[in-house]
Amino acid sequence: MGCVKNAADINQCQNAAMDNILPRVRIVLSHTSHPGNIGAAARAMMVMGLADLCLINPKKYPDREATDRASGALGVLDNAKVVTNISDALADCSYAVACTARARDLTHTVFDARSAAAKLITEAASGPVALVFGNERIGLTNEEVLACDAVAHIPVNPKYSSLNVAAAVQVFCYELRMAAGQVQIPASNSDAFEKATHAQVEGLLQHIGETAVAIGYLDPANPRNFMPRMQRLFSRARLEREEIDLLRGMLRAAQRRG
Amino acid sequence: MGCVKNAADINQCQNAAMDNILPRVRIVLSHTSHPGNIGAAARAMMVMGLADLCLINPKKYPDREATDRASGALGVLDNAKVVTNISDALADCSYAVACTARARDLTHTVFDARSAAAKLITEAASGPVALVFGNERIGLTNEEVLACDAVAHIPVNPKYSSLNVAAAVQVFCYELRMAAGQVQIPASNSDAFEKATHAQVEGLLQHIGETAVAIGYLDPANPRNFMPRMQRLFSRARLEREEIDLLRGMLRAAQRRG
Repeated sequence: MGCVKNAADINQCQNAAMDNILPRVRIVLSHTSHPGNIGAAARAMMVMGLADLCLINPKKYPDREATDRASGALGVLDNAKVVTNISDALADCSYAVACTARARDLTHTVFDARSAAAKLITEAASGPVALVFGNERIGLTNEEVLACDAVAHIPVNPKYSSLNVAAAVQVFCYELRMAAGQVQIPASNSDAFEKATHAQVEGLLQHIGETAVAIGYLDPANPRNFMPRMQRLFSRARLEREEIDLLRGMLRAAQRRG
Repeated sequence: MGCVKNAADINQCQNAAMDNILPRVRIVLSHTSHPGNIGAAARAMMVMGLADLCLINPKKYPDREATDRASGALGVLDNAKVVTNISDALADCSYAVACTARARDLTHTVFDARSAAAKLITEAASGPVALVFGNERIGLTNEEVLACDAVAHIPVNPKYSSLNVAAAVQVFCYELRMAAGQVQIPASNSDAFEKATHAQVEGLLQHIGETAVAIGYLDPANPRNFMPRMQRLFSRARLEREEIDLLRGMLRAAQRRG
């Protein structure tokens, strides 16, 4: 059914776009220390129309303080998925953005919150995407940042940059809602090429490493920077599923000869 | 003194603009019930470069919970001015915006948060301006709304619109900072890696093709779409020279075993 162009219909289309796209954006909170921040993040998400919360090793959860600060956003809080590592948090996602306080990472694309939101909404049209927030004191680990496709930061006062993690979630979810309000969902997904998930890319990387060792190219005792460079290349390349199949077919053939 | 137009000077001018203008925007919290929200609002302000906090009849202030949630933003919290009515809060302001959950008032100009921020920053060039937030449960009184020049609201999920007052302050202060200056995005250093030339990428693709045949993965009589897909992948990936060297090293190792 198409969208007609009078004001009321346009609003309805926009609401439909938001209702469909925003739930595809997962908020991942890694190693959160204060349960109050988990509750406040759930509330920040729900008030902007997001629903998918994932917690990596929360220090205290479930917890009374999380429930109190969620203030009724229990649908989001109670459905939060708890996992133990970043790979599980991103397994079914085709695109992920790491939120960092500063651009400490020199190899990723760096977005501000507004452009990150626009990019995530675009990517969400073809499947789940994620926005990852680190621990209150130390932020994200290098491993967690590397598992993401880009980094994003919220511009802050350089003289006092102590942005609360739930407040950061609020700003990003607000920007996501603003960005979702500007798009209309295409009637059908004309993109014939299915994007690979993070789990599929990880499978490929592991296969490359194993093959490189098996064929005598990579010395496990002295791996140099081979694997980080491969990870960087293939996360930048935004692989499609069929490309993964082709590359892994070739790796299997190399291994048989190895 | 004028601003010169090289990148560093532009950044300095933007920072100066923010340092001068943002402190002229007063945040007024009216009849706040929870001291934690006052502390969180002070932190939200300071992290975005605002400093002028005014409290109309706070239920509990000063309070330990306000101090805890301010998390170091005590410069803002301790300098907060406490008054008893909206007239005193806005006395020296030339422009004020009331934050309301919905546009219940039909006589004021109605802004969303983004346009309200732009308007406030423009008005702040000529003197103090204010943004007024109401009580957690009942919002602003009609008298308080009438004392302002416009109303503004943050777009929210119509099915769950319970936006925390400190979270609302965070979103508005973020929009004020965004409006006050084009904030510099730290440049990603990815240009430090030398990009591969087209000829180098072609060399890689030819090498992949030869290796795939040599190891028995690709049948030259029936190549299907293998090479076009590889070409598509590696042209999209914007390869770097070192990545080409690594991949070709691995291909050579596979060929030796082939």
